Amino acid sequence: MAHKVRFALDAMGGDHGPAVVVAGANLALAAHPESEFLFFGNKMLIGPLVDARAALKQVSRIIHTDIAVRMEDKPSQALRYGRWKSSMWLAIDAVKKGEADVVVSGGNTGALMAMAKFALKTLPGIERPAIAALWPTLRGESIVLDLGASIGADAEHLVNLAVMGAAMARILLSLERPTVGLLNIGVEEVKGLEPVREAGRILREEKMPGLDYRGFVEGDDIGRGKVDVVVTEGFAGNIALKTAEGTARQIGEYLKGAMTRSLGAKIGYLFARSAFRQLKERMDPRRANGGVFLGLNGIVLKSHGAADAEGCAAAIGLGYGVVRDELLAKITAAIGRPGKAQRQALGGAAS
Amino acid sequence: MAHKVRFALDAMGGDHGPAVVVAGANLALAAHPESEFLFFGNKMLIGPLVDARAALKQVSRIIHTDIAVRMEDKPSQALRYGRWKSSMWLAIDAVKKGEADVVVSGGNTGALMAMAKFALKTLPGIERPAIAALWPTLRGESIVLDLGASIGADAEHLVNLAVMGAAMARILLSLERPTVGLLNIGVEEVKGLEPVREAGRILREEKMPGLDYRGFVEGDDIGRGKVDVVVTEGFAGNIALKTAEGTARQIGEYLKGAMTRSLGAKIGYLFARSAFRQLKERMDPRRANGGVFLGLNGIVLKSHGAADAEGCAAAIGLGYGVVRDELLAKITAAIGRPGKAQRQALGGAAS
Repeated sequence: MAHKVRFALDAMGGDHGPAVVVAGANLALAAHPESEFLFFGNKMLIGPLVDARAALKQVSRIIHTDIAVRMEDKPSQALRYGRWKSSMWLAIDAVKKGEADVVVSGGNTGALMAMAKFALKTLPGIERPAIAALWPTLRGESIVLDLGASIGADAEHLVNLAVMGAAMARILLSLERPTVGLLNIGVEEVKGLEPVREAGRILREEKMPGLDYRGFVEGDDIGRGKVDVVVTEGFAGNIALKTAEGTARQIGEYLKGAMTRSLGAKIGYLFARSAFRQLKERMDPRRANGGVFLGLNGIVLKSHGAADAEGCAAAIGLGYGVVRDELLAKITAAIGRPGKAQRQALGGAAS
Repeated sequence: MAHKVRFALDAMGGDHGPAVVVAGANLALAAHPESEFLFFGNKMLIGPLVDARAALKQVSRIIHTDIAVRMEDKPSQALRYGRWKSSMWLAIDAVKKGEADVVVSGGNTGALMAMAKFALKTLPGIERPAIAALWPTLRGESIVLDLGASIGADAEHLVNLAVMGAAMARILLSLERPTVGLLNIGVEEVKGLEPVREAGRILREEKMPGLDYRGFVEGDDIGRGKVDVVVTEGFAGNIALKTAEGTARQIGEYLKGAMTRSLGAKIGYLFARSAFRQLKERMDPRRANGGVFLGLNGIVLKSHGAADAEGCAAAIGLGYGVVRDELLAKITAAIGRPGKAQRQALGGAAS
């Protein structure tokens, strides 16, 4: 690839604003020296932070704006006052204009999605974008999507999610033909599952070269790593993600409590502290920080609002890989796959 | 209460059949001596198991049938060959006839729900039954429903779930006015959330005496114990439950790995082993075994198919509490609350 990876960073996004975004970029630069950064936001706040880091300063430019999207705003509100001028909008616009390769923002997810959709538009054949993320499993990592970009899904949308998720898995997990499962529940009532079943039928029959469809999976199969790509609509996907985060935090608290309750436990903790440190790292949500918006004419990454500098650096690092390996071009090629046009012309499967 | 709690046990349900069901009943009897058991299933298998336990034998009766619902059957199949004659059907029928107070089965959930609905019918004003369960949290326990009995929900169904869940929380968690939250996602798209929002409006406006509505909660609020009752439709609820189970298992594996990786960790484990034992108990899914089917003219409990004797005893113990405290009567009173009839007559909120 000819040029460096150029990041458009919404410096005002997230709970901690520029301090974390600039520090995160600095960490990411050490890991990926072939990076350049555009920081969007309040120059008075960002300037001194960048100036204090010589190497970062050399590859950074600050684009000033007074306006920042608030975490509590509805997408419609954010669009109304933040369009054309907020740090979030300007970062997305830089990707649209070709001045940057990828947006990273820790801001309001709904606003980020609404602005990204408005500015970048969806890819041909994709009606609704999705949010995908890496999910740590017992086998390594899987990709789960959609994590909340859209609620409900018809069969065609689920198939598109499978195709986009598989493209992402080929790149980020270095797999030639990732396995794909549709998230479903064991208990059955025929009606509600129809789009999921129909999507399963399409995936089974089309036998696409880039993915290996393995049927339905249940919630407990995600952590087990049963498939490389788990596909679901956004409501259930978001609830699965948040529930897993909550459960991990809950068990972490139990563990902390158990290890301080008795003298024996405290001594045991001392002996095993390097093991506990490893465990903590494995459970660290920062390692998997970064939701990738798929299905748009441009790559947008959502970093967790509460992320610290390391979390922010992980999201930027994810963006680096996604740009270097040309995720966007590969998704665009994959969704234009044969078979789909005929199916849509018949009007059958898409409903 | 005049009589003992009379259990109708589907002895052929679950992965381990009569061995676990009889042993579970025996454990439950020790904890709740005011119990009686009807075992439905193969007498050749059940008889010797009961005979070997003198105290249990005194309060047990075996009703023979050769037919058992298979775990892999669809509900429609199970209804076709198992109605009138399977162990599952006969156990439900015993509750219908007033010969038992509560059914406990570790069998096929879809078949159990289909048969229970067919035999017992839903309560007046309830169209679709729900599955509710106790969920361990950082604050103690919460009740989560629906865990998969029906997919999708209109506002009226969600309100009914809130009312039934609150009645269950009043009894099982000994709370006068349990807090209730509607499970939702942070990212918003107006359309899909409409039934959840509408249910929120109804719950806020009606100010029911038996529940304290606290608004929306997200997936990570469940484990935090933010509210006593978490209400959602069955698809997302089932995925949340299974995902939490999967995450707990995953972290348990990480922990096991971490504690055997080095000599220091192994020594630490020895010192802290009572703490680890406590932790294991807290994470033990058997403690919270038992999904309660709500909204039917009778109480049906689903025990986990993979439950062992202790798990089965926990489900029976849950049934004991539910019968002793007259859950059914309290739910019936609660769903006939004022306000609802008027709203339905106006035809507004129920759509």
